[in-house]
Amino acid sequence: MKNIGLIGYGVIGKRVADAINAQDDMNLVGVCDVISDWRIQNAVRKNYNIYAATPDAEKTMKDAGISVVGNMMDLLDKVDLIVDCTPKNIAAQNVKIYKEKGIKFIVQGGEKHETTGHSFSAENNYNSALNLDATRVVSCNTTSILRTLTALKKAGLLDYARGTLLRRATDPWESHLGGIMNTMVPERDIPSHQGPDAQSVDPDLDVITSAVKVPETLSHLHYWNVKLKKPTTKEEVLNAFKKSTRIKFIQYDQGLVSNNTIKEMYLDMGRPWGDMYEVALWEDMLKVVGDELFYAYVVDNQAIVIPETIDAIRALTGIETDAAKSIAKTNKSLGIN
Amino acid sequence: MKNIGLIGYGVIGKRVADAINAQDDMNLVGVCDVISDWRIQNAVRKNYNIYAATPDAEKTMKDAGISVVGNMMDLLDKVDLIVDCTPKNIAAQNVKIYKEKGIKFIVQGGEKHETTGHSFSAENNYNSALNLDATRVVSCNTTSILRTLTALKKAGLLDYARGTLLRRATDPWESHLGGIMNTMVPERDIPSHQGPDAQSVDPDLDVITSAVKVPETLSHLHYWNVKLKKPTTKEEVLNAFKKSTRIKFIQYDQGLVSNNTIKEMYLDMGRPWGDMYEVALWEDMLKVVGDELFYAYVVDNQAIVIPETIDAIRALTGIETDAAKSIAKTNKSLGIN
Repeated sequence: MKNIGLIGYGVIGKRVADAINAQDDMNLVGVCDVISDWRIQNAVRKNYNIYAATPDAEKTMKDAGISVVGNMMDLLDKVDLIVDCTPKNIAAQNVKIYKEKGIKFIVQGGEKHETTGHSFSAENNYNSALNLDATRVVSCNTTSILRTLTALKKAGLLDYARGTLLRRATDPWESHLGGIMNTMVPERDIPSHQGPDAQSVDPDLDVITSAVKVPETLSHLHYWNVKLKKPTTKEEVLNAFKKSTRIKFIQYDQGLVSNNTIKEMYLDMGRPWGDMYEVALWEDMLKVVGDELFYAYVVDNQAIVIPETIDAIRALTGIETDAAKSIAKTNKSLGIN
Repeated sequence: MKNIGLIGYGVIGKRVADAINAQDDMNLVGVCDVISDWRIQNAVRKNYNIYAATPDAEKTMKDAGISVVGNMMDLLDKVDLIVDCTPKNIAAQNVKIYKEKGIKFIVQGGEKHETTGHSFSAENNYNSALNLDATRVVSCNTTSILRTLTALKKAGLLDYARGTLLRRATDPWESHLGGIMNTMVPERDIPSHQGPDAQSVDPDLDVITSAVKVPETLSHLHYWNVKLKKPTTKEEVLNAFKKSTRIKFIQYDQGLVSNNTIKEMYLDMGRPWGDMYEVALWEDMLKVVGDELFYAYVVDNQAIVIPETIDAIRALTGIETDAAKSIAKTNKSLGIN
């Protein structure tokens, strides 16, 4: 049983905390943040031990009636590994402390690859993360790219892939803070950053991405044109994707015609926050033309990295050396099937 | 001087009427519709002769104080060619009448290719439309595809092209009638209809499209991955695109970072309705990698077909047998340079 600490109780952090709490081979020691409003009350409600990241935060938390167990250093002293889900500039400072104290740590996809020297995607490179001191779980979009292209690569089908990424403008709960409205905003450069980011996990992938922000908050939508190593059939491609346990086929003809209908289905399923840990890929839209493959899928930007983070904890701590076993265990705990 | 009639004074029709009126080799005999509200007042303001499409419309128009010159048959008797910009089901009925009366006609991209047996895009196939009885000006998205790919084809660069089309959800003036909000809605099938539609003009084009509706009303945005016949340079590609007079290079680094900023620039330029007749292609975003080409551009769904329609009139009536001369004349009249 490994002791895990969570620093940064935001949209990713609160989900990671719940996911750690759902595992039987790791113990959530506590969550650490600076917030003292309704957001941290969610952790109070769940009886998580709460640590204050700064002296100021400790005071405002206590003023708000929150029972504070200790400060960030107290938390660090009790854990085998920290999952850092803080915003970019804060994570960079925290990482120095983890390194000084010799604590294993995981950062999220907003950080640079160089921060850890290893970037993680469970189905692609779990083994290379075994017993490392640190890794970075790549971002939502990059995770989806790696899952899908790794499946094609393992089946010997992938030559190269070119993707257009339609990105949600901002996170749902933050959309009052400013998003975009009645327009689209392309990323300045081709390739957009997600293609090179996927190569930080798998340098062999021949992948080029373009990206554009659209005025919606629910999830991302990717369109892919893939050159295959040989002419093949739709069935063979579907079989390749089915080897991934985190790609879910959806049917346009069953009314799943859009990001919002997919979101509602996941809420119907009782997933917390309607979280979709899987890549939701349209089976009936998928098209094979000779040695070319075309498909589209939806990515939940808040949820897809949660199972990846749990697997990364197992890899770094070495509590499970078999990638497939960790993935299966995580999937079962989160209701992915 | 050829006499031209316009039937269907909607978002396309009102623009076509103004464009015909701006030519010195054709005469706008009148516009014909059923509407009697603020929309037809625009034609009144411009002193266009107004014809009523039905007896009921004639009555409501007269009740609204509109001076009605005659009915649709009266208009047909006076013209050499009709441009039909009515909605789909109405155009199909009208076409029967044009054929019975032996009047040349042009329909818009919403109609089927079979309606006319010829589909038109000025820079691609003006010559094949010369003195025909009818043609169809292809839709906004298809027009943009043909302009860009024809330029690459003429330069000997185009092998095949794969595009992802982000479509505006509805026309700006109709967005209160229902659009989409905070979601994206893919077209069910790959290829989406625009690729095959482009092949109705140029069957040799190897083009496959995917399309998705996004919650905005300003314009479409296309991302293209093109396989070239050989490795080349960005400069050679730009030179190919420059051969088209209806592709405008825009610079992301000059603040043109989105559909709305581009729209505002065209309004600044004093274009009616901010109309963008050109394909607005990001020069600095465009990327060549070996024998692959990546670029993105914006398409004004209401305006791009207007110059095409003027050229189609010249081709069908035979008043100009040289495509380049017609295109140049149209461009000058509309301020395209």
